[in-house]
Amino acid sequence: MEIEIGRAKRARRVYAFDDVAVVPSRRTRDPEDVSISWTIDAYTFQVPILAAPMDSVVSPATAIMIGQLGGLGVLDLEGVWTRYEDPEPVLAEIRSLPSDLATTRMQQIYSEPIKAELIRDRLAEIRAGGVTVAGSLSPQRTQEFYQTVVDAGVDLFVIRGTTVSAEHVSKNVEPLNLKKFIYELDVPVIVGGAATYTAALHLMRTGAAGVLVGFGGGAASTTRATLGIHAPMATAVADVAGARRDYLDESGGRYVHVIADGGLGSSGDIVKAVACGADAVMLGTTLARAIDAPGGGWHWGAEAHHPQLPRGNRVAVAQTGTLEEILYGPARVADGTANLVGALRRSMATTGYSDLKEFQRVEVVVAPYQGH
Amino acid sequence: MEIEIGRAKRARRVYAFDDVAVVPSRRTRDPEDVSISWTIDAYTFQVPILAAPMDSVVSPATAIMIGQLGGLGVLDLEGVWTRYEDPEPVLAEIRSLPSDLATTRMQQIYSEPIKAELIRDRLAEIRAGGVTVAGSLSPQRTQEFYQTVVDAGVDLFVIRGTTVSAEHVSKNVEPLNLKKFIYELDVPVIVGGAATYTAALHLMRTGAAGVLVGFGGGAASTTRATLGIHAPMATAVADVAGARRDYLDESGGRYVHVIADGGLGSSGDIVKAVACGADAVMLGTTLARAIDAPGGGWHWGAEAHHPQLPRGNRVAVAQTGTLEEILYGPARVADGTANLVGALRRSMATTGYSDLKEFQRVEVVVAPYQGH
Amino acid sequence: MEIEIGRAKRARRVYAFDDVAVVPSRRTRDPEDVSISWTIDAYTFQVPILAAPMDSVVSPATAIMIGQLGGLGVLDLEGVWTRYEDPEPVLAEIRSLPSDLATTRMQQIYSEPIKAELIRDRLAEIRAGGVTVAGSLSPQRTQEFYQTVVDAGVDLFVIRGTTVSAEHVSKNVEPLNLKKFIYELDVPVIVGGAATYTAALHLMRTGAAGVLVGFGGGAASTTRATLGIHAPMATAVADVAGARRDYLDESGGRYVHVIADGGLGSSGDIVKAVACGADAVMLGTTLARAIDAPGGGWHWGAEAHHPQLPRGNRVAVAQTGTLEEILYGPARVADGTANLVGALRRSMATTGYSDLKEFQRVEVVVAPYQGH
Amino acid sequence: MEIEIGRAKRARRVYAFDDVAVVPSRRTRDPEDVSISWTIDAYTFQVPILAAPMDSVVSPATAIMIGQLGGLGVLDLEGVWTRYEDPEPVLAEIRSLPSDLATTRMQQIYSEPIKAELIRDRLAEIRAGGVTVAGSLSPQRTQEFYQTVVDAGVDLFVIRGTTVSAEHVSKNVEPLNLKKFIYELDVPVIVGGAATYTAALHLMRTGAAGVLVGFGGGAASTTRATLGIHAPMATAVADVAGARRDYLDESGGRYVHVIADGGLGSSGDIVKAVACGADAVMLGTTLARAIDAPGGGWHWGAEAHHPQLPRGNRVAVAQTGTLEEILYGPARVADGTANLVGALRRSMATTGYSDLKEFQRVEVVVAPYQGH
Repeated sequence: MEIEIGRAKRARRVYAFDDVAVVPSRRTRDPEDVSISWTIDAYTFQVPILAAPMDSVVSPATAIMIGQLGGLGVLDLEGVWTRYEDPEPVLAEIRSLPSDLATTRMQQIYSEPIKAELIRDRLAEIRAGGVTVAGSLSPQRTQEFYQTVVDAGVDLFVIRGTTVSAEHVSKNVEPLNLKKFIYELDVPVIVGGAATYTAALHLMRTGAAGVLVGFGGGAASTTRATLGIHAPMATAVADVAGARRDYLDESGGRYVHVIADGGLGSSGDIVKAVACGADAVMLGTTLARAIDAPGGGWHWGAEAHHPQLPRGNRVAVAQTGTLEEILYGPARVADGTANLVGALRRSMATTGYSDLKEFQRVEVVVAPYQGH
Repeated sequence: MEIEIGRAKRARRVYAFDDVAVVPSRRTRDPEDVSISWTIDAYTFQVPILAAPMDSVVSPATAIMIGQLGGLGVLDLEGVWTRYEDPEPVLAEIRSLPSDLATTRMQQIYSEPIKAELIRDRLAEIRAGGVTVAGSLSPQRTQEFYQTVVDAGVDLFVIRGTTVSAEHVSKNVEPLNLKKFIYELDVPVIVGGAATYTAALHLMRTGAAGVLVGFGGGAASTTRATLGIHAPMATAVADVAGARRDYLDESGGRYVHVIADGGLGSSGDIVKAVACGADAVMLGTTLARAIDAPGGGWHWGAEAHHPQLPRGNRVAVAQTGTLEEILYGPARVADGTANLVGALRRSMATTGYSDLKEFQRVEVVVAPYQGH
Repeated sequence: MEIEIGRAKRARRVYAFDDVAVVPSRRTRDPEDVSISWTIDAYTFQVPILAAPMDSVVSPATAIMIGQLGGLGVLDLEGVWTRYEDPEPVLAEIRSLPSDLATTRMQQIYSEPIKAELIRDRLAEIRAGGVTVAGSLSPQRTQEFYQTVVDAGVDLFVIRGTTVSAEHVSKNVEPLNLKKFIYELDVPVIVGGAATYTAALHLMRTGAAGVLVGFGGGAASTTRATLGIHAPMATAVADVAGARRDYLDESGGRYVHVIADGGLGSSGDIVKAVACGADAVMLGTTLARAIDAPGGGWHWGAEAHHPQLPRGNRVAVAQTGTLEEILYGPARVADGTANLVGALRRSMATTGYSDLKEFQRVEVVVAPYQGH
Repeated sequence: MEIEIGRAKRARRVYAFDDVAVVPSRRTRDPEDVSISWTIDAYTFQVPILAAPMDSVVSPATAIMIGQLGGLGVLDLEGVWTRYEDPEPVLAEIRSLPSDLATTRMQQIYSEPIKAELIRDRLAEIRAGGVTVAGSLSPQRTQEFYQTVVDAGVDLFVIRGTTVSAEHVSKNVEPLNLKKFIYELDVPVIVGGAATYTAALHLMRTGAAGVLVGFGGGAASTTRATLGIHAPMATAVADVAGARRDYLDESGGRYVHVIADGGLGSSGDIVKAVACGADAVMLGTTLARAIDAPGGGWHWGAEAHHPQLPRGNRVAVAQTGTLEEILYGPARVADGTANLVGALRRSMATTGYSDLKEFQRVEVVVAPYQGH
């Protein structure tokens, strides 16, 4: 499988979700007979869907809504909700920025300091909603704020960056020792992004409950043009699923969940993520399309307002329904942006599978996208 | 031929009609010397063309026209003709719907119940036209209506869904036992879609006379985006032709017809379908382009009005001639949408073949479409 | 190199000129030191360029111009010049036709009978110009008109169709026996199109002096969409060059010229044709761009007015210079449409080659076209 | 890895920067800990960036600015600065030319003779700026002007053409004997373009300090369409890096620098160039985008005004910041055109590498560009 790029360099061919598709087997099922529930640690979810910790996707209110709809909303603890007492006017301003000023102004908005008390308040608000509570910090901030987060009480702790490694080397600051950190923490940790077998295997060895697979591959990211880094998701998920299998053996049975994070633009992509080995998916753009998402028709990630090197854009997204319609339908459009859950069920039923774990074995083909 | 997508997933490269082309051999022939007649069970057709059971393609009147032109029109027994006493105003409304309302309104229109007496009347009308009579039910409705259909009298019975398997598993309803059903029925059955070797082989073992190859690959389908499922037609047809060959051996000589259904947008695609192993083709879009097709410049399939998960769109099609001109020319355009029969004859003649069965052996090349 | 399309079909990957490029070697030369002269039979040309027998490219006047510029203009003996006493108004009408009527009206124009006396007059006019005389007939008309052509006197006789085989089978008419025909003829014959090794080898065995490689691949052709037939030129030329090599051995030393015909849109494509093994090129579109070409900004081939199955369009072409400028520059544009000869010389010099035969050995890479 | 194009031709698959990407490893670092300094001969640069000798990129003033910013500006000694006493009005005219006249007028402008005294003055002006001095001649002009250049005093001498070989063959003029020339010269020489292993190895054997890898692959070039020549950069750089390794062994330790020159449109491409084996990059378009670049929103190379065969265009480029911002940020856009240095640092840090030489070993994948 190795390709010679030139005499001094070899490379491996990798695949995006757009390059692959699943195919039916000899059996079919009723969509109603299909189970898509997902259990991680002590928490069971009706649907294997996490809402990404991005200000355009998850506010405390939407975290509650998503929880009530059977998924898990993860609040970004470094976004506007923990920087501003009243973030609504800030969100409104971001939505109204002209395109040529968006990057510069967002760099200013996100330079406002994070407040520990707001972290506490926002998490408390979600807990009061009666749903599983999850918040996210970047590895750079984890040291500084994790105690606040743990004290505030979270059920699942998410450490999320474009690339998170088990071994961060720094000359100036003592880096987060993930293994020690997770060991000492009482709360299950989901950590990523990781895009390769080796990186994921090392994250699994830190004791994480789940690994986020991806590297800034979302619709709003320009990582490939700026950094030259690209980790197409079909290969990334299948590689990390391979790490899960090997680590399961190596650890004598610890099952670390593989969560596809990024590049999931349609229900078809969710299907393909599971087909390549994902246990669950973390959605950004797909949920930012909800009428009741805080982005209000816009979507952006932390890369978009990096102070020195912005690597993403605030992008306009079509609003195609309420959060409930996007998850459960009925779909009024036929482009894979609505009734995500119904589509996943139907795809599994049509190809003859009855639960997510089994569906990871479905036959996949390489069929590059060309019109149809 | 297996590709490693990532450590935990392997896949096979598959091919669409657009990826392939046929090439001439060392011999050429006169187009007039080429035979393209097709015989299935007791029925012989001048041309290996079935009109797809879709409301935009086949009405009782066009079924008669197509029969008189040498092909076979299959009436959708779950379309407007069996739901409405007078479907013409309904068809007119569908044609006039604004795009943003089309899906929703079509979901309502097709929620009208199917009437057994209309099934009887429509089939009788076709029979009165003096042509071979064929009607189509989905697997879900076959149990409920097949007796009506058989009593009404059909020559060929078509069971058609996006994916039809020989083994449908359901916890709530007793699924159709295809093998038993076909065995007890007196009428030859054509069944599909099937897109893989194994699925098709199992359908062949049910006793079907023909298998429809495809999976919602038509112009109006968004199956790939919604369900992540995709079965490019060149590979699907060649795989099912492989099943036909193996089943011929296994059954001691029963030849099950392979009918390509979907993704056939031009006369060139029909040529490629036969080149990949098809005995005949079922056409949707291509015939919906006829001035005298019931779609009147529009085309849609059952996926477009699925109550929970629409997976297709009502699409506008260019009207390029009468049904007769589309089949037999003269063509006044040069884009492969007219004189389908003349193009098939000429392609076979140019590459030196004299009948369809022989032409299944023509040399095929992989030459991805790029401009020319 | 064989690919499995599906269980019952295998195919070979083939390549277009756009898929390949030539690369420099370790040596460079001066463009002036490069020879690009070409000799076939008793005729030597300064440049390895034939103008295609198409009404938009070659009139008697342009045949003379091209001859004086060092190439060979081939007159279509079935075009307007042999159907009409005064074809200028006819050409003017074709140029002025609205697009939607072009196919139909051209079908009428080309239904006018061919006149033997006009064949004589046109060829005499070219001979009077003092250049090598070449005329072209289709295989269908060769029997009927070749005696007229030979009596009129041609130096090179061209038999050109979309696909010409050494073995045409017909139930109704006695087909042209190419081998007998060429044997009896005193004039060297160039024959084609042929797109495969076997077809070309059989044509070489008929005694032809040259084989035209191609199958309706020009800019004006829609053969792939209508007939499903496609023979990408890089592979076709390299295959036929393989036949030339094998026939050279088999015949004990007869060198049959390989002439790339179709798909040559730029000077870069001419370079690639020679690099893949061509001895010369036949140009359509590329020369139709000349201000002094008879197409006057339009280009069309015989496929565009086929009475039953038109497989091409009359296309508008940008007029980028005089015939002389297109062949020898100076170029005032930088897109490969002008100074074809200068570009070929420079490419050969840059890659270190000094004549055409040697340049057939230049290193070629597969580098699909993507922007640059 | 060899592909059969057709029976008489084999080829190798080659790769462009767009075809590849780098992937993270298991380690990450702080961007501040990364060293990107580059040393060639006695000269050390903070950043491995050379500004290409093109009139739209380097004037004496910008050469000084680039030097002060840590890179190396190379002045084209055959551009307007050595042809005109006062080139500013000439540059202004080029910027204002309408597109259809640009090629013709630039051909005239660049027909003005080169003046030896202007070469002296311009180089002296740069030296007075206190930075490393580098000037460039084409191989055709090196014989004529090198003594002037050496007398004027340069630190690094650049010989740059579309293709420069160690063995130029000419019947009319005594070609430059590169080996002898470099041996006798006291100044280190950087020479190219070379695009293949063999060509580069031969250039290394001439005693050059560095080899420019490329063949007119820049944004302004139409070499592929005109000459059919194309050397995708990922393969070219990796091949020449292979030559560096082999020559290092053969020469008993002489390290010749590999400088990617062309096709570097974004910071991501710079990352990939190093990943494929480059020691440094020469930038054209990327720096022409600077507000303070002499092109003033336009970019062109010597190919654009070739007297007989122009092979490039004057192209408009978006002006995205000052030279300093383009090199060091802060970026106000997220498309890879600003903060090139920051992006390179971050990419190396994210993938776990701490200097350029080490980063040449980063894992590369083949992932053709398709949207994201």
